[in-house]
Amino acid sequence: MSRIDYDLTLIRGVVFDMDGVLSCSAVAVREDGTLQRTSNVKDGYAIQYALRHGLRIAIISGARDESMLPAYNSLGLTDVYFKCEDKTVALSAWMDRYGFSGKEVAYVGDDIPDIEAMGLVGLPAVPRDAAIEVRRIAKYISPVDGGCGVARDLISQVLSAQGKWMLEDATKW
Amino acid sequence: MSRIDYDLTLIRGVVFDMDGVLSCSAVAVREDGTLQRTSNVKDGYAIQYALRHGLRIAIISGARDESMLPAYNSLGLTDVYFKCEDKTVALSAWMDRYGFSGKEVAYVGDDIPDIEAMGLVGLPAVPRDAAIEVRRIAKYISPVDGGCGVARDLISQVLSAQGKWMLEDATKW
Amino acid sequence: MSRIDYDLTLIRGVVFDMDGVLSCSAVAVREDGTLQRTSNVKDGYAIQYALRHGLRIAIISGARDESMLPAYNSLGLTDVYFKCEDKTVALSAWMDRYGFSGKEVAYVGDDIPDIEAMGLVGLPAVPRDAAIEVRRIAKYISPVDGGCGVARDLISQVLSAQGKWMLEDATKW
Amino acid sequence: MSRIDYDLTLIRGVVFDMDGVLSCSAVAVREDGTLQRTSNVKDGYAIQYALRHGLRIAIISGARDESMLPAYNSLGLTDVYFKCEDKTVALSAWMDRYGFSGKEVAYVGDDIPDIEAMGLVGLPAVPRDAAIEVRRIAKYISPVDGGCGVARDLISQVLSAQGKWMLEDATKW
Repeated sequence: MSRIDYDLTLIRGVVFDMDGVLSCSAVAVREDGTLQRTSNVKDGYAIQYALRHGLRIAIISGARDESMLPAYNSLGLTDVYFKCEDKTVALSAWMDRYGFSGKEVAYVGDDIPDIEAMGLVGLPAVPRDAAIEVRRIAKYISPVDGGCGVARDLISQVLSAQGKWMLEDATKW
Repeated sequence: MSRIDYDLTLIRGVVFDMDGVLSCSAVAVREDGTLQRTSNVKDGYAIQYALRHGLRIAIISGARDESMLPAYNSLGLTDVYFKCEDKTVALSAWMDRYGFSGKEVAYVGDDIPDIEAMGLVGLPAVPRDAAIEVRRIAKYISPVDGGCGVARDLISQVLSAQGKWMLEDATKW
Repeated sequence: MSRIDYDLTLIRGVVFDMDGVLSCSAVAVREDGTLQRTSNVKDGYAIQYALRHGLRIAIISGARDESMLPAYNSLGLTDVYFKCEDKTVALSAWMDRYGFSGKEVAYVGDDIPDIEAMGLVGLPAVPRDAAIEVRRIAKYISPVDGGCGVARDLISQVLSAQGKWMLEDATKW
Repeated sequence: MSRIDYDLTLIRGVVFDMDGVLSCSAVAVREDGTLQRTSNVKDGYAIQYALRHGLRIAIISGARDESMLPAYNSLGLTDVYFKCEDKTVALSAWMDRYGFSGKEVAYVGDDIPDIEAMGLVGLPAVPRDAAIEVRRIAKYISPVDGGCGVARDLISQVLSAQGKWMLEDATKW
């Protein structure tokens, strides 16, 4: 049973912000000044599994540093958009590309630059430690912090509602 | 509404210590013996936004290692002072530079080397995990640990009190 | 006294998954896109001690990146299997090699790719933060998260039950 | 007031284990298989201050990797002993060197290889997350985990009892 008050059978695409959602809010800084972002292996399992079962997934980030791309690609995730100063532009283009209406999309964001994009989708969601301004507009607040499995939490509920979670090939990565 | 018992409309400048305030107290050590400090993306959002809206921000640190400078510069933050054996010297010079009186300045420190500098400002503040000796002299104890968003907590309250938080350009970074 | 509802005197071999069990679920990503996994020094103590006292230990992981091998080897741990798409294959081969029956083996996993392998052993166990689907089939849920000492917790209970924990050479590493 | 049930005015030397005491129990692993240990800036403050005020401090570690030495040296800490298979040997030699009796020494350890050494001193202490076998023999259990300020906690209490904490030069590092 889902803890999300939304008809999850509608969801065809899920969008994640990177910093503070897939990666922790507090990260180490490398000697060259770039951020050493984090990845969560349980998020990784859910993302590769979802892509294999037809759920569309995208990452839309304002970050200028694209160094996380190979890590995301290794999960089969190719719809990754960096340098998005206005996230609504990338989100609208992505939804158009697959013909998704707002109510068919979930967007997980954690901070103020995500707010406008979250207004375009049916299911705006946040990690537990999202900024208060963003929690206020969320229809679902995940019980886990950003970087600690929020993608796993959301994807597993969406696919469970659609009868696609824990299928025969689930133990394969 | 602010949780800080201070007239935040007075604040024109905010000063942060680095280690234990913007960066976590426990950090990884690199192979060359330098510390791999951390950055918080929600602090980063608040700092770049505040600078765009006229709030002055400085970092005053006793650290000899200046390797975090590019990361801070990328937020638009240029008033960064390292190797400050006596932090009151750097703080006084910075306040003089902009013509700030003590009551117009907030200073967030976490340890004993910050105490004298905190005595010069109207709003001395600390992260939750500050040393007990520093918590004792603070007018505000943030609900978050150092490195976990204390700059975001303070800046958002200051700018909210001044009617400058969540303006039209807030979703842009 | 053990907190595990199983006859631990039967256990001759213990198998660990890597990601989310010996290493934390959330890890930093290196510049080349590989994961910077973690190691726990208290797990390390238990593993090297157990190997010296005749308990067989193996790591069975689906990861393609074998970079953790030297760290495990330095503990005396040589039965380390990477790239295991189907973990039951590696587990069965390992059990055959030492002549172990299912009830003589414990397996600590944290996610769905571990489920089938856990069904082959007498004592399937999980860290506290294991995925819900895996917690459901576990006979023992450790009080610590993956990466935070789950190997120490399990090994110390197994060897205590067998009268082999805290022997004369215990203070030597 | 101290939370330690011991006459702290007797203490002339404090010894720390490295892994799990000054550094966290769970640490990242580098590409060459070495551990990326951690340092705590509040521990660092206490150590350099204590050394300036006549308290002797040593690190006694079983680790073969000496890469943390420069970081400790930068705090003024030179009595650092690695590769100590039997920690009682290094501890006894260090106590002899300065003419310390057991009751004049505190030793903070977290795991079984520390137990014999802890039996030689008057004040054996542990971080909150020490192994149960070591917590049992401790006269003081610090409220903080290893790597999270246990050295700060112990040193500040020792020097406070001796009237040497927060002296005039305390704000200087």
